[in-house]
Amino acid sequence: MAKLARTLAQIGPLDEQAMRAAQERENQLTKPPGSLGRLEEIAVRVAGIQGKARPDVSMKVIFVIAADHGVVAEGVSAYPQAVTAQMVANFVSGGAAINVLARHIGARVVIADVGVAGEVAHAGQVVVRKIAPGTRNLAREAAMSREQAKQSLETGIEIFESQLAQGIAIAAAGDMGIGNTTASAAIVAAFTGLAPEVVTGRGTGVDDTRLAGKAQVVARALALHRPDPADAQDVLSKVGGFEIGALAGVMLAGAAHRVPVVVDGVISGAAALVATGIEPRVKDFLFAGHLSAEPGHRAALGHLGLRPLLDLDMRLGEGTGAALAIAIIEAAVKTLNEMATFSGAGVATALET
Amino acid sequence: MAKLARTLAQIGPLDEQAMRAAQERENQLTKPPGSLGRLEEIAVRVAGIQGKARPDVSMKVIFVIAADHGVVAEGVSAYPQAVTAQMVANFVSGGAAINVLARHIGARVVIADVGVAGEVAHAGQVVVRKIAPGTRNLAREAAMSREQAKQSLETGIEIFESQLAQGIAIAAAGDMGIGNTTASAAIVAAFTGLAPEVVTGRGTGVDDTRLAGKAQVVARALALHRPDPADAQDVLSKVGGFEIGALAGVMLAGAAHRVPVVVDGVISGAAALVATGIEPRVKDFLFAGHLSAEPGHRAALGHLGLRPLLDLDMRLGEGTGAALAIAIIEAAVKTLNEMATFSGAGVATALET
Repeated sequence: MAKLARTLAQIGPLDEQAMRAAQERENQLTKPPGSLGRLEEIAVRVAGIQGKARPDVSMKVIFVIAADHGVVAEGVSAYPQAVTAQMVANFVSGGAAINVLARHIGARVVIADVGVAGEVAHAGQVVVRKIAPGTRNLAREAAMSREQAKQSLETGIEIFESQLAQGIAIAAAGDMGIGNTTASAAIVAAFTGLAPEVVTGRGTGVDDTRLAGKAQVVARALALHRPDPADAQDVLSKVGGFEIGALAGVMLAGAAHRVPVVVDGVISGAAALVATGIEPRVKDFLFAGHLSAEPGHRAALGHLGLRPLLDLDMRLGEGTGAALAIAIIEAAVKTLNEMATFSGAGVATALET
Repeated sequence: MAKLARTLAQIGPLDEQAMRAAQERENQLTKPPGSLGRLEEIAVRVAGIQGKARPDVSMKVIFVIAADHGVVAEGVSAYPQAVTAQMVANFVSGGAAINVLARHIGARVVIADVGVAGEVAHAGQVVVRKIAPGTRNLAREAAMSREQAKQSLETGIEIFESQLAQGIAIAAAGDMGIGNTTASAAIVAAFTGLAPEVVTGRGTGVDDTRLAGKAQVVARALALHRPDPADAQDVLSKVGGFEIGALAGVMLAGAAHRVPVVVDGVISGAAALVATGIEPRVKDFLFAGHLSAEPGHRAALGHLGLRPLLDLDMRLGEGTGAALAIAIIEAAVKTLNEMATFSGAGVATALET
């Protein structure tokens, strides 16, 4: 069976028995029931994902998947395309925001190049799985072939599975790619039906003129390709990106291997739309790490029905918001595992009311 | 000079030179300017608080200050008063939520008893500075004398200062005390002018009947005492609590010693109203860790003009929300300190637009 089909076949429901056991324990811990709020929901869901009443997320992996975008020819970004490869080199040398945050939470960073234009420095420390040196210009033609779309999904699955031997208890889905907020806006518009000007944002920080032009590029691409939201691979191939497909693959693989995957910003959110478009049950395995300042991100999370853990006006990508959220998820899991129970600690429970 | 007056005299403005230097560095780091959102604002403000362009928050201290409340006689809590002392014992043995979260973020926990009714087990590991064995019943008489209010503030200052030798770069202000959401609601109502039924919440989880009774207790106390919001010590003495005064003292001492203090939930928020009521400049040294599910907390933060870092429906107290927020603040400071600059990493800056 092909890798994608095999992966989809592996995706099952949450483990309700593990969730019940986790919830019962939550109710016995030395705190008023429910008083840890969303931390309790998070811990119970991680139990259901991992199929363990006492889950564990200590082995953390941040996937930062990079690729370039032909649509930069339309002047949609404030930065030159060369920055994609330069930032990959920065990830390798540990100087990017995601490196700092990964060290902060104790995660390892897996850097992958699935379509950066040009050679990437320090390739020895990068998983190089280039599908092509950047997509085509989605404003004028399909970003990639349907075959390449499937290849990007399977590449993401393979990148995820390459980490299984080293251990992976929770994953973050991060991106790098100049031009990719344009592709993401097109994906979000395709799935949600919202207008391009509603879901298109400033990305790296374009001015009003460029922002208006960027929304027009998205509108033109949608009119040209008419991507079918009922066919996620159609959307991905026409207006997507290689890293977006690979991140969707990471999410599919996470669900198949019962590993929670934390969605980052709008690019990661677009990948989540693709992944859940292919297999809706993936949603149960996803956490929304944060709410990005990019408008398309709110639309994507609303469509997915995921409530973000953090809201810090971040809009950097790379997995940065997801990494911070992992610190919260780990805290949730630790409270479930490590807190004393009322009976164990000799603390009185609530009065009869 | 008395301790309180001396502390107030030490409180100065934020260091604008350090903030400018930190902001300049933020703009040179390998990310679009502003793309780390609130993380950048946080790092810059910590620079201003500590008076260092490259601040550091690695020495973290969580103050958990406990006391009892005479108002429990009115049936305002779902738990018996003995739980205050029992939970202090749980803090000592490391089984409470705050212990787990403190270990998660690498903080030390300082447990203080400023007015628990009865003896606390394991007193050797608790800073015992009892002002009285619980306040009086604020529904019938002033919770404490004006002298005791001042004493509680100074006790908090002393507890904070007792940690200076061991190092303290950031602090969380956490509480324990059965009945203290009632006192906090009264304080919030006194300072904000909002109606008791708007700011009174379920605390540990009382039902609708007890909630209505609790709001009536708050209303009765306010009508009886008419606390003067222009005189914070008047409010504290009439409807406050010893731990609330001590937490306000921790905040005053933090500002005096240029240490950021992270406010926790509604009790800590009430303490922040007292502290800023005494000295408005304290506000610049405070971070709101999270938005509690207690309605009075939103009112308190709105009055203070502090935007919470997290919103996770937590309502446990103990400093739990503040502890999680410290992980975010530390991340913010680390990105400022550890990220590469555009020139250092050989990454192109934005195109001229």
